[in-house]
Amino acid sequence: MINRRSFMSKAAYSLAALSSPLFTRGNTIKDTHINNELATGNKYVGNLKAPKIPRVRVGIIGVGSRGYGHIRNIARIDGHEIVGISDLYEDLVNRASDTVKHMAPGKHPNISTYHGDEHLWKKMIEQTKPDAVFVCTNWHTHAPMGIYALDHGAHTFIEVPIAVTLQEMWDLVDAAERNQKHCMMMENVNYGREELLYLNLCRKGIIGELLHGEAAYIHELRWEMEQQERGTGSWRTLHYAKRNGNLYPTHGLGPIAQYMNLCRGEDQFHSLVSMSSPALGRKDFATKNYPTEHKWNKLKYIAGDINTSIVKTHLGRTIMVQWDETSPRPYSRKNLIQGTKGTLAGYPTRIALEGGVEQLTDSHNNWAQGEQLASIFEKYEHPLYKRLGQKSEEMGGHGGMDSLMMLRIFECLNQGLALDQNVYEGCAWSAVGPISEQSVTNGGEVQKFPDFTRGNWKTTLPLEIVE
Amino acid sequence: MINRRSFMSKAAYSLAALSSPLFTRGNTIKDTHINNELATGNKYVGNLKAPKIPRVRVGIIGVGSRGYGHIRNIARIDGHEIVGISDLYEDLVNRASDTVKHMAPGKHPNISTYHGDEHLWKKMIEQTKPDAVFVCTNWHTHAPMGIYALDHGAHTFIEVPIAVTLQEMWDLVDAAERNQKHCMMMENVNYGREELLYLNLCRKGIIGELLHGEAAYIHELRWEMEQQERGTGSWRTLHYAKRNGNLYPTHGLGPIAQYMNLCRGEDQFHSLVSMSSPALGRKDFATKNYPTEHKWNKLKYIAGDINTSIVKTHLGRTIMVQWDETSPRPYSRKNLIQGTKGTLAGYPTRIALEGGVEQLTDSHNNWAQGEQLASIFEKYEHPLYKRLGQKSEEMGGHGGMDSLMMLRIFECLNQGLALDQNVYEGCAWSAVGPISEQSVTNGGEVQKFPDFTRGNWKTTLPLEIVE
Repeated sequence: MINRRSFMSKAAYSLAALSSPLFTRGNTIKDTHINNELATGNKYVGNLKAPKIPRVRVGIIGVGSRGYGHIRNIARIDGHEIVGISDLYEDLVNRASDTVKHMAPGKHPNISTYHGDEHLWKKMIEQTKPDAVFVCTNWHTHAPMGIYALDHGAHTFIEVPIAVTLQEMWDLVDAAERNQKHCMMMENVNYGREELLYLNLCRKGIIGELLHGEAAYIHELRWEMEQQERGTGSWRTLHYAKRNGNLYPTHGLGPIAQYMNLCRGEDQFHSLVSMSSPALGRKDFATKNYPTEHKWNKLKYIAGDINTSIVKTHLGRTIMVQWDETSPRPYSRKNLIQGTKGTLAGYPTRIALEGGVEQLTDSHNNWAQGEQLASIFEKYEHPLYKRLGQKSEEMGGHGGMDSLMMLRIFECLNQGLALDQNVYEGCAWSAVGPISEQSVTNGGEVQKFPDFTRGNWKTTLPLEIVE
Repeated sequence: MINRRSFMSKAAYSLAALSSPLFTRGNTIKDTHINNELATGNKYVGNLKAPKIPRVRVGIIGVGSRGYGHIRNIARIDGHEIVGISDLYEDLVNRASDTVKHMAPGKHPNISTYHGDEHLWKKMIEQTKPDAVFVCTNWHTHAPMGIYALDHGAHTFIEVPIAVTLQEMWDLVDAAERNQKHCMMMENVNYGREELLYLNLCRKGIIGELLHGEAAYIHELRWEMEQQERGTGSWRTLHYAKRNGNLYPTHGLGPIAQYMNLCRGEDQFHSLVSMSSPALGRKDFATKNYPTEHKWNKLKYIAGDINTSIVKTHLGRTIMVQWDETSPRPYSRKNLIQGTKGTLAGYPTRIALEGGVEQLTDSHNNWAQGEQLASIFEKYEHPLYKRLGQKSEEMGGHGGMDSLMMLRIFECLNQGLALDQNVYEGCAWSAVGPISEQSVTNGGEVQKFPDFTRGNWKTTLPLEIVE
């Protein structure tokens, strides 16, 4: 079954490649649909509620950086048991295992560990039979590991981006559909306090009809190049030399997509244009910090230092999405959402509303920000944050958003609830990567988003303001 | 001569329209070149220095809102004499004339006034024979008035945008070239204190190689719809019902273009993509504020409330340009310029540099802003602002930028210097209007910028840091 599907999707891919660009509405918008038809026997999982799992058996692949952060949070949460830890490196597996035992004594007595061979993660899945697998590895292994876990009956939680290519994303969608399992990309930023507040304000109509959003991942990470044999820099640096586009779109985009109900009943991703600046910063950094013969000086960096894309939705809304991991400037995810009655924005957190923000500003001409906003948080705090915010802040992980996400994941699995992010959302948000590459390569040419839901977004339930 | 040129350019335009889209580098980038060849006898004016005019004879067309502001500044400046004032409305002409006499007693003894007929501005030019004509009227009359003034031997100063269509822009270029006169769009924002500081910092290499800029005109102007028979709202409102794109790009873009030396030796505009949000705000405003039968409720507003465009330059740099005159949010021109060693931004004024801003911040991870920046202004203040900043602030006009621009215009005319903005810059900056409309209409399709310099940007002198 797996092999047939794999063959089928590859054949469909070639066909789409041969026939593109498709002409839509008289314009040359490239159609990047690949698997337009649901495979026989498969079923849409956009509203999936899986059977309750009172005690979730957890396996984790990759405990170097991100995965080590996750397992520290997971260890302390109830309703599950860690049964398998896998990584290429023995020291990382041992560190993770020891930390779990130290942080949650007696809670996870049966941890099997796997290290040393790059395929041992498969054995971990086969032998420990987890109910849930967490994939926290390099980007290129997200899809194959996710698909393998799904095909072995596990709900799958994958780090961002969910995959690198559109083909991998379609394959993940197919795998989730044929196995009727959750496949959630772990977009932690959707659990940030500001993001949850803004989601709540949008749902309450405080800023009117939504018009436009701005999302970014502006985060200077040149220092990762110091990780030369192991760690994020050792593989991420190679991406800058092979791809030009927005390589890491989801942290900023995920929250905006949820404000707009994209993929969920109200609206959907439609098309995208993208342009990148010159690629100068990585070369400068390599020249300055490494000998001429160093491998970082042998790469030709092609990823523009800053990429700017514009997304168009079916309702005609726009989202400006930026990415810059190279330039020396302060961190920002922008997190701006604009409606007919006001605008909410991040960096710094600030709000402007038609007629002014109640008792804070006189008109929309000024932002209410900083300490001023205490009363807004008090009045409009997201119920989920009210319930779990303090606990998650104590647990930590990017200010608590990591642990709040994990607390929510496990309560959904335990109680058989739909997850807050379905596989189609993870794929749509991640798709900005490959389709921005296509747009940049073609001088900014419009690209159509694949509709991973195959039209089912229209009947997918909006994300509720969960209590 | 005028008629022949006018015919020629119309013929060239039709030909271009028939043959587009042209295919460039394998991509479908529409070529919006129209007049690719210099007309016989014409000469490039990008570096034009005109003969000194010790006492400039000044005529002004349009003294309602913007023009009235200008004439108040002009009246008080030395080296010229106001000889003609023209407007449709008698009361406005009289107000302007009285104000000039009151503000500068005895300095302008021979002012002829023209009002009542929509063609009297021609008679003003013919009879008073001004050396310089200021055009401060509605957008659609900018080009015909500018061309007429140029063809009657006057240097011409036109409000923003310099024109509405690409054809009008080419016709302005041709008119300046055949008459060897200045035709400057009065982009006042290029004379803002922050903008001049940033220009100086860019020229000194403080932020390294330039990569990316951000420009905007986010200014809620729905209240202009109250001007129903006369005034800006009476004609500008109609644009929102006829055009969809970035209708007013130059205030944000002008400074970014000068930082990057676009049109001037180093770099040039290349292409653009553009997308607009839904158009909801104007309709909402009309519904809420006017009776059903009111003319504002009979228009179908099509200009998206917020437009986002991305410009690509020949060197591959990007500029994000936004426009929103409708949504309830605080004013911003963004004014962000990013280089390999740092970023300068506006709203609020803030600076981040590799290694930190001297004695203000420790690293690029934090902005230096607000009061902190006094030392930066002290060290890097633009020499022009040092010389004329206090005077211009006292004179006023958008915080002094209007009067600084006027002081500079008259000293250039008096001394026979090249102006700070040539006709090609005014056209290129304004061209974002019509080519963003084309892009939006075609779903975000890439549009190529016309090169109004016809390749001469390569030998055009960069704008100096004038003393």
